[in-house]
Amino acid sequence: MKKLINDPEAVVREELQGIEAAHGDLVRVSYDPYYIVRKDAPVQNKTAIISGGGSGHEPMHGGFVGVGMLDGACPGEVFTSPTPDQMAAATQAVSGGKGVLHIVKNYTGDVLNFEMAADMARADGIEVEAVVIDDDVAVKDSLYTAGRRGVGTTVLAEKITGAAAEAGASLSEVAELCRKVNANGRSMGMALTSCTVPAAGKPTFDLGEDEMEIGIGIHGEPGRERRKLASANEVAEMLAQPIVDDLPFRQGDRVLAFLNSMGGTPLIELYVVYQALDKYLRGRGLTIERNLIGPYITSLEMAGCSITLLRLDDELTRLWDAPVNTAGLRWGV
Amino acid sequence: MKKLINDPEAVVREELQGIEAAHGDLVRVSYDPYYIVRKDAPVQNKTAIISGGGSGHEPMHGGFVGVGMLDGACPGEVFTSPTPDQMAAATQAVSGGKGVLHIVKNYTGDVLNFEMAADMARADGIEVEAVVIDDDVAVKDSLYTAGRRGVGTTVLAEKITGAAAEAGASLSEVAELCRKVNANGRSMGMALTSCTVPAAGKPTFDLGEDEMEIGIGIHGEPGRERRKLASANEVAEMLAQPIVDDLPFRQGDRVLAFLNSMGGTPLIELYVVYQALDKYLRGRGLTIERNLIGPYITSLEMAGCSITLLRLDDELTRLWDAPVNTAGLRWGV
Repeated sequence: MKKLINDPEAVVREELQGIEAAHGDLVRVSYDPYYIVRKDAPVQNKTAIISGGGSGHEPMHGGFVGVGMLDGACPGEVFTSPTPDQMAAATQAVSGGKGVLHIVKNYTGDVLNFEMAADMARADGIEVEAVVIDDDVAVKDSLYTAGRRGVGTTVLAEKITGAAAEAGASLSEVAELCRKVNANGRSMGMALTSCTVPAAGKPTFDLGEDEMEIGIGIHGEPGRERRKLASANEVAEMLAQPIVDDLPFRQGDRVLAFLNSMGGTPLIELYVVYQALDKYLRGRGLTIERNLIGPYITSLEMAGCSITLLRLDDELTRLWDAPVNTAGLRWGV
Repeated sequence: MKKLINDPEAVVREELQGIEAAHGDLVRVSYDPYYIVRKDAPVQNKTAIISGGGSGHEPMHGGFVGVGMLDGACPGEVFTSPTPDQMAAATQAVSGGKGVLHIVKNYTGDVLNFEMAADMARADGIEVEAVVIDDDVAVKDSLYTAGRRGVGTTVLAEKITGAAAEAGASLSEVAELCRKVNANGRSMGMALTSCTVPAAGKPTFDLGEDEMEIGIGIHGEPGRERRKLASANEVAEMLAQPIVDDLPFRQGDRVLAFLNSMGGTPLIELYVVYQALDKYLRGRGLTIERNLIGPYITSLEMAGCSITLLRLDDELTRLWDAPVNTAGLRWGV
């Protein structure tokens, strides 16, 4: 295992120390239990939003804490759900009296733990709503999931709901908006290589030198099929076609195209895929109105990419464009 | 070779097509010869700045073209200098009557070609100054370089000079500022793995499963030593100590700490390195006043990192903080 770490058991704690040292102007870090909140949390009379999940997907979620996006994030150990007490403590830390939205990726552990955390927070008098993101069209059920997995649309939901909450939306409005983003977002990913969980010390799965996995999950869960390496143009279509057909996206739709690196795939390759994605979507009559290209929801150092399409309307576009000030996404400030 | 590409010979052209499709709101792309310029180029009565070099280091340089940073960039083939006619054409395309600064990384091919391009542009009546960045403390000479290599400080110089040019500085002022950034910036990098140039199809060099290369160049050029894998804490000190001692940075100095991924190293590991870097620099009496963490000057999919420190004063800090609107760096807009 070749990684820039010290102790495999200390990766998440030391990562948090790095985030605290680097971004103390934006966030505060709690170590017992682990969570990251906006520096000015709790913001009084603002709907708060938290998310969380296993570590190893950076910058998601901790890198999205800040003005205009998340109020807080709970990192679990690598690829491991955070615990209900972490989530409850983060909920308490961000609660400003107007309720707290939990944005939950659809993995069985995350969903159960967020449900328990919501009950704990409600017992403390905090109003909580939860929205589960399940946008991955690759497989119906998966290794850690009943139903579809929650992947790239999560990043977009965190940005868009964060903008609405910043502008004064109520908890029920923010939750409804989050359901709208989930309903209009679809994703699929692929891998060229596995990743290695530090505590495991060996690759999560094996892929031959001439193989790739289409429909992979963000923890290396099996996808639709393992097949021979294909070209970037073919890969773009293998991912984009099921996404477009699933919603379905229709001719004339305006979309946000989010092309994500799984961690080990550099930008030079993402742009080669993007030219193919752009051509494919034009051919289907879609207009890319906004895009996001880079490593935003990663699987450690896995090589590969995922595509997320979100159908836009004026409301979603306006909220996407609103100012955001986080370590992972920043504009307008 | 596992890469998301189509034809190894077409990678740069297709990458440019992706950049054009994605960032047409920011830039224009020329295909004959290859260059990327600000959408509004040439900006009349503004000192223009271009840079260039081999592809494979994305987002540098094309991702740094836009308001507040570069006016233009010339991408060569992967790890190959652009040609003088490319550089001359880009110079012409951005020239707004107030002169053009060439920011050149110190590699022999780049330096010679930029010199020829400057002569060609001057023959066309364009005033040109060139500043060579040579900030890599690892080795005195290198495989493609007489003197020190130009690496991470280039990114910082492009941002800082771009802000000054945007604010109305003359060519001689912008060139002087660029020399100041180079004089106050130092870098060193390391690799855990090699990278594979698409046209070569096999790794540039071999590193054993328990080895790393300290002082690596951004094209995989040999560094100071090949040694056994060490911890993130040790790696941070192996890079930071020679940097601090070289300038030298002194107790009380304020610095910008730029922790760069070579491409394949994900953010979770960079933050583990950052906590170590932060501790080391505090121990040396330095204050990190600004930071930049992520993949900004990469070597394709190479795993590893580099550290750049820039000694700040009020002028450099103010110019670093100024608005920038590029695909690779964006704030304030």
